[in-house]
Amino acid sequence: MKGFRSGYIDERAVVGEGAILGEGVTVGAFAVVYDGVTLGDGSFVGPHSILGEPPGDYYDRADTAPEGCNIGAGSVIRSHTVIYDGVTAGPGLSTGHRVTIREGSRLGKDCRVGTMSDLQGDLTVGDHVRMHSSVHIGQLSTVESFVWIFPFVVLTNDPHPPSDTCTQGPTIRQFAVLATNSVIMPGIEVGAHALVGAMSLVTRDVLPHRIAAGSPARDVGAVESVRCKEGRLDPVYPWPAHFRRGYSDGAFEFDDD
Amino acid sequence: MKGFRSGYIDERAVVGEGAILGEGVTVGAFAVVYDGVTLGDGSFVGPHSILGEPPGDYYDRADTAPEGCNIGAGSVIRSHTVIYDGVTAGPGLSTGHRVTIREGSRLGKDCRVGTMSDLQGDLTVGDHVRMHSSVHIGQLSTVESFVWIFPFVVLTNDPHPPSDTCTQGPTIRQFAVLATNSVIMPGIEVGAHALVGAMSLVTRDVLPHRIAAGSPARDVGAVESVRCKEGRLDPVYPWPAHFRRGYSDGAFEFDDD
Amino acid sequence: MKGFRSGYIDERAVVGEGAILGEGVTVGAFAVVYDGVTLGDGSFVGPHSILGEPPGDYYDRADTAPEGCNIGAGSVIRSHTVIYDGVTAGPGLSTGHRVTIREGSRLGKDCRVGTMSDLQGDLTVGDHVRMHSSVHIGQLSTVESFVWIFPFVVLTNDPHPPSDTCTQGPTIRQFAVLATNSVIMPGIEVGAHALVGAMSLVTRDVLPHRIAAGSPARDVGAVESVRCKEGRLDPVYPWPAHFRRGYSDGAFEFDDD
Repeated sequence: MKGFRSGYIDERAVVGEGAILGEGVTVGAFAVVYDGVTLGDGSFVGPHSILGEPPGDYYDRADTAPEGCNIGAGSVIRSHTVIYDGVTAGPGLSTGHRVTIREGSRLGKDCRVGTMSDLQGDLTVGDHVRMHSSVHIGQLSTVESFVWIFPFVVLTNDPHPPSDTCTQGPTIRQFAVLATNSVIMPGIEVGAHALVGAMSLVTRDVLPHRIAAGSPARDVGAVESVRCKEGRLDPVYPWPAHFRRGYSDGAFEFDDD
Repeated sequence: MKGFRSGYIDERAVVGEGAILGEGVTVGAFAVVYDGVTLGDGSFVGPHSILGEPPGDYYDRADTAPEGCNIGAGSVIRSHTVIYDGVTAGPGLSTGHRVTIREGSRLGKDCRVGTMSDLQGDLTVGDHVRMHSSVHIGQLSTVESFVWIFPFVVLTNDPHPPSDTCTQGPTIRQFAVLATNSVIMPGIEVGAHALVGAMSLVTRDVLPHRIAAGSPARDVGAVESVRCKEGRLDPVYPWPAHFRRGYSDGAFEFDDD
Repeated sequence: MKGFRSGYIDERAVVGEGAILGEGVTVGAFAVVYDGVTLGDGSFVGPHSILGEPPGDYYDRADTAPEGCNIGAGSVIRSHTVIYDGVTAGPGLSTGHRVTIREGSRLGKDCRVGTMSDLQGDLTVGDHVRMHSSVHIGQLSTVESFVWIFPFVVLTNDPHPPSDTCTQGPTIRQFAVLATNSVIMPGIEVGAHALVGAMSLVTRDVLPHRIAAGSPARDVGAVESVRCKEGRLDPVYPWPAHFRRGYSDGAFEFDDD
């Protein structure tokens, strides 16, 4: 078996003649790369993945010319992931296993989308965003740069489900943190550097640098008030003051507030 | 690469000799269709899917004659989905990616089961039901026609886990809506046209046309009292009065209340 | 098509020359078994699974010698599952579909890991543990023997996300039960035979034989106080007194308290 990052197109992969693969791209066994996909140099596509998946309306159309699915250089797409036609991402996109990214999703550089996360499409994600496993981002959401989203968080978009007249996605401002199992209601804005506690139902806007917790979530203080439970004296938030693991060099070289 | 809905059985798919494929059925690359599967005319099976998956007891038996897995005409089974032997669904079933439908599930016509939803088997789903992503339906559940279920909703069935003497699935009556991350406890009935709010823990029956919200959920009013946040004067519920997107023609031609 | 448990390596599977397969091992179509994997006698690997998946740091290294992935005899790995290099499990491991078990996970014998569950690695799971669908176990967690964990439960490990100085996994003691959608916060200990109610946010230790429920969770009584809703007079907990379905013979032949 050939190794990883070897620039090897497995003979058991299916690659459309209209797909454009950069230099040194690796495509694993049983992957499917449809026409219209462009993969940047050095990217890796894991086994059983599908790139350029046709959106729902293709099933009822005669013509199926792809809009284009563009994944930047140096990306790692792990196994069983499905990325639709009409997605732009990267460079440096990293997905876990079985991620779904639907049509109309625009992701910046150096984003991580965890195992089984589900990006519903028609949404915008900035640079250096970190989504953990099983994150669900509804349509029309805006997630700014350096945001962290933890498992089973949901960004909703329908205030009166089911409807089609009131749809409005949440906006998560830069450096905000959404802890596990929290739900962000439609149209809500979570401010820069804000923190949403685990299992919170966020029904009102969260101001910058504030902590929201509970169901429904209440303002429970400033992020600067949090002290590490293990006794460190340094404040824990804003988190860029002490945590930069896994970011590319230079990611923080700007005014981050 | 051959297009969608082309009536094309990919040569890299595995189709059992005992499978019955209707006219114009498409089976994608790396799909596995076991013996005993019947697929209606014009259905589409995405790559990496498995139809007719054997239930757990097959692993300890010598004989493995399938009971039968019947999917109606015009169905779209998206990639990486697993549908077990002993399932009946359709016509017009539409699944997202990586859906699981286990043995003993009976789904009516025109149902949508979202990406990564998990139907645990021995359950009944009516017609025109809409399940969003990552819905979990426990065994012995009954979901009537025109119900909407949103991400990470769980229908449970064991009041004293783990047990095997008290199992009882919830019943969700027609046109009810279960919002994201809500949990329906065992044996609970959610009435027709009722609305369960996001992140609610439903421990008591919800009467028809009522709203239940909170953890544990309380009755917080009639669905007719909800007004659109965007200022429309029309009532939002019952939702069939204003929302019919995506339903087949004639779906609502009956007394819906 | 060849049957299950037939000791058949499908010709469409990819099996590395350095993989060691025991007697009677079955490997399904489109499965990938990397070098360094050892599979015990009679194990079954479902279609589209990946065993020995390389951890993240492989993508940036030249050498990719595997550490080893050891799955015990008689295991059933269902389709689309990904088990990383650096995992030890079994014998008698049973996974649902699309399970992820990452590097550094150590699972005892006779464990069940439900469909779409996500074990994040560097964690310890005892014997006879039952995880239902969509369970998320964070790094550094300890789950003792005979624990039950229900859908969408999360064991977290970062008290101040994102951080890397305070990481501490929860400990779930033997026979404890974590009901659906509950979240266990970092460093928390749930005592032996304790019960965590559905949709609970557990922010304090739960004493043995106690029930914790709510968000945040409170002590709401002793497990011995629970009576079956269907009117049986016997106490429901501790559950091993009345429920032993699905365990191997002899599993309970020890002092279980």
